[in-house]
Parts: sequence; C-alpha cells; structure tokens
Amino acid sequence: MKRLRDIGEDALIERLLRGFPRAGLAVGPGDDCAVVDDGRGPLRLLKTDAIVEGIHFEATAPASRVGWKAAARVASDFAAMGGRPERLLVTVALDGGRPVAWAEGLYRGIRRCLEQHGGVLAGGETSSVPAGAPAVISVAGEGSVGRGRVVLRSGGRPGDLLAVTGRLGGSIGGRHLRFTPRVEEGAWLARHARPSAMMDLSDGLAKDLPRMAAASGCGFEIDRERLPRHRGCSVGQALGDGEDYELLVAVPAGRWARVEAGWRRQFPKLGLTPIGRLTEAGGNLAGGWDHFR
Amino acid sequence: MKRLRDIGEDALIERLLRGFPRAGLAVGPGDDCAVVDDGRGPLRLLKTDAIVEGIHFEATAPASRVGWKAAARVASDFAAMGGRPERLLVTVALDGGRPVAWAEGLYRGIRRCLEQHGGVLAGGETSSVPAGAPAVISVAGEGSVGRGRVVLRSGGRPGDLLAVTGRLGGSIGGRHLRFTPRVEEGAWLARHARPSAMMDLSDGLAKDLPRMAAASGCGFEIDRERLPRHRGCSVGQALGDGEDYELLVAVPAGRWARVEAGWRRQFPKLGLTPIGRLTEAGGNLAGGWDHFR
Repeated sequence: MKRLRDIGEDALIERLLRGFPRAGLAVGPGDDCAVVDDGRGPLRLLKTDAIVEGIHFEATAPASRVGWKAAARVASDFAAMGGRPERLLVTVALDGGRPVAWAEGLYRGIRRCLEQHGGVLAGGETSSVPAGAPAVISVAGEGSVGRGRVVLRSGGRPGDLLAVTGRLGGSIGGRHLRFTPRVEEGAWLARHARPSAMMDLSDGLAKDLPRMAAASGCGFEIDRERLPRHRGCSVGQALGDGEDYELLVAVPAGRWARVEAGWRRQFPKLGLTPIGRLTEAGGNLAGGWDHFR
Repeated sequence: MKRLRDIGEDALIERLLRGFPRAGLAVGPGDDCAVVDDGRGPLRLLKTDAIVEGIHFEATAPASRVGWKAAARVASDFAAMGGRPERLLVTVALDGGRPVAWAEGLYRGIRRCLEQHGGVLAGGETSSVPAGAPAVISVAGEGSVGRGRVVLRSGGRPGDLLAVTGRLGGSIGGRHLRFTPRVEEGAWLARHARPSAMMDLSDGLAKDLPRMAAASGCGFEIDRERLPRHRGCSVGQALGDGEDYELLVAVPAGRWARVEAGWRRQFPKLGLTPIGRLTEAGGNLAGGWDHFR
C-alpha cells in the first residue's frame, strides 16, 4: 500500500487535484495563490495555509510568534504574486487544556502582522483536538493585485535572470518565526521590474526553483557561490533549509540593470542578488523540504 | 491559570477577536460567514472551518465521507445566510504514514459535494503532522448571495416565528458524515420567506438558538414536544446532539402561512416545522456541543 511519504508532496497534490473542474478561476491550484477575475476591479487572490505544532513550530515557541508566522506565510504568498493581503480567516485547533493566554498571544501575533503588512481579520473558527494532539493553525485569505500586475510562476523564459531578495539559510535558528513577508518588495517588483515569474521561498531554493522552472517550461542554472547566505550558513543550508520567505524572481536580462538600480534606491537595506538564469532545459538541485518524505 | 476548557468556545472567540479592526467588512466575525460588499455585484461570503480526527470523525470513517463532511459544513454556512458556495480552499494536515488512497478518497468526497451543491476547488495545501497525530482538514471558501438577499443571525424581532428544516437529533449514528447542506432550501427561504434571521444548526439547537436570540437582542420560547425528531431520538437528543446541519429560521408571524404553503410546493419531501417564537427576553436551554468544555 502506497503511503504519503512514498510519493512526496508535489506528486500528492497533483494526484488529488486531478479531475476537479477549474471554471471561474483565472489561475487554479498550483501557483502561490489562485486568481479570481471578476471582470472588473483588481484581481482577487485566494490562498490557504496551515502550520502544525512539532512541524512548523516547537511547543516552546512564543504564541505571538506562532501567530505572526501563520499570518505572515499567507502574506508572503500574496506578495509572491505582486499582491497584498486583504482579508484573513483563521482556524485554530487546540487542546482544551491549553492556556487561554496562549490563544490570546497567538491572535496578538496575527494582529501585529495585519497591522504591519495589511489586511483585516474576517473570521475566526476554533476547534478542539484530542488531548495531547498538536495545535494546528490554518490561515486562509483573500488578497488583491492590480489588473495586469499579477506575476505567476509560469511566465519565465530561457535567458531570464534569476534573483532573490535578502539572504538564505539558517531560518531554523529562529528566523522562521519572525521573518518579514516581502509585501512591499513584491508589489514594487511587480510594478517596476515586471518579472516574468515570481514565487516565495518556503521549502528552500533547492525545492522551489525547480518548481518555478518546471511551471515555466524551462531549465535553470545557478552560481552556488553567489547565493546570498545568512551569517554562518553553508551553501547547502542556503539551498535546503527552507522557510526563508524571500522572493525568487525571474527578470528578462535586458531589464536587469534598470531593475537593480531602482531596487537600490527603493530598498537600500535589502539585497536583490542575481543567482543564475533560466535555460532551455536542465538544472539539478537536490534537497529542500518535502512534507511527506 | 485559565485554560480553554474553563471558558468555553463563545467566550474564547469573543476574547480573541477583541481589538481587531473591521474595516472593509459589511459583516465581521460572529455570524455564519463574514460578508464583503464590493459596492456592486453580489455580496461575497467568507468562511473557514475545520474538522479534526477523533473530534468530528472517527479514525475508521470512510475518507470520502470525511471529505464530504469537511466541504458540506462550509456549504451549510453559506446556505445559512441564503448564499451558495463559489470557491473552496482545502488544507489537509496528515501523517506521512497515511495511505495515499485515503487522501484520494478525502478529495473524492470534497469533489462530490462541489458537484452536488456548487462551487469549485480553488486551491489545496498539504502539510504533515507528527507521527500518530490526528488528521485535520480545514476548508475555507468564498460564497455569494444576491444583494439584499443576505440573512444574518441578528435581524430577529420579538414575535417572529421560529422554524427548522428537516429533523433533529441522532447525527452521531452516521448522519453527521452524510448530511445534505441546505443550499437550495436556504436560497429559497432567503428569496421567498425573507426571514429576519437564519443560521445552521451545527452545535445543537440548545446551543445555537440562544446564539441567534442573543445576536437579535431577543429571548425565545420553544415547544419541546413539537421539535421534529429523527426516528428513535428523544427531545434531549434533538436539542443537544448537534451536527444536524438543518436551518433554523425566524420569520415574521404574518408571513408564516404563505411561507409554509410555498415551502410545501417547493420541497414536498422536507419538513419546515414551527417550533416556537422569539420573545422580548428570556428563554433557557441547557446542552449542546461546546468544543472546549
């Protein structure tokens, strides 16, 4: 009997979604968000996500950091398409023995993320879990992006430059609980760099870059030595640790010099580092995070 | 130290939502769904929900029934406001040792619910849980309801008749996994009965009716002997078992005769039973399901 850990996350999702109709969606499952086009006004982005105690955060993690992470991951997905969060729905499944103060801290972290990166809480749902079972926090929501500004994973072309925001690796040391979702940066890139493809790095460059390349029908090559790494991180960590929540962007090579200059003026404290390019085919990276392996 | 089980679900939600801004929402947290008014077109309904193994379904429940339940609960919430499901987002958190066939069965049940009650799958997300931890399936989504057709919990007035669709009680025997969300019925009621208040019965009439009355600033009285019960169920079960997913509706008394006659023509096989009325104040029911008590 085949088990989830035997097939891995991407193959599982592909199997599960087979046969579902896509009517009414400009972009269906498979990108950072689904895209709804109401025919007027901004495009709407839909996204759901969950974090699980013992997988995405330790039992000892401060509750407000857990709440921050739950909300910021979704904000990061909106940012990855050039959009902004609008309305979030939060579902928490908690053991009845958990302190009320913990749940309050969780929501405080969610609120802080909304205050800093936009969006309002549209609904909250609570459920119990069996005694001793891990907490699960699921955040779904709606974002928006200007018509014609949305950036998919699938528009990359051979020759496009690949770049990442910030630095990679070592998030497990604590950064995974307090990262900044690149909402301003994603909106700026969508507007000024007009990237051919963009996504956020949640499972590690080694896992996510091949996804973007595959969605774009391209291969890729990267210069491992040029990867911007956090202090003390190896190239392997920068590639495989995951939970960086930085943006990976593909930009037509002819626009790169202008993009780089504009970025430096706009975000003088944050790097935008070229790391390689999309190619006709090929590219090989091992590692990164897979939920079921 | 106060724990979740010490304060109960309603008090917890109220505490958690304190201090959140509500900008951009026609109806915020507290009703069956949040309501977004874009100023044109239908109103949009937003809802999130989750079901947990060992709480909402047993480990032995067929996966397709679990998927049905996860999707149908959200459809029922849209129905409770007179609306219909449009786009669902599904997050599943599963042990990597779970058979792939189980996850496929889960999605088959979700698809069947969409086919029968409307809506498309807009996105799916998967996460692992620590080995042995219960499965959690969270479904969030967007529904719609015609402008001016939306029915809240809060519009009831003293003297309004209270009625329920179908029969109550005994869902634990299996009905909780295969109930029919009252999407057609809710839309018909919103259009033809113009109810002053409506909600779906998920935690049992004894828990949910006081919620509706409180939201409407009313009391209530019911005739326990008139409660439509499933075969073999006591009045206590009809009041307290929960997971009926029938609609509870408040209708101005002067309209009742016409509503009843119209209902019989439209839904000859399903009851719409008057069970009592909203009052100025008072009303007392004990029981029903509270997640944290």
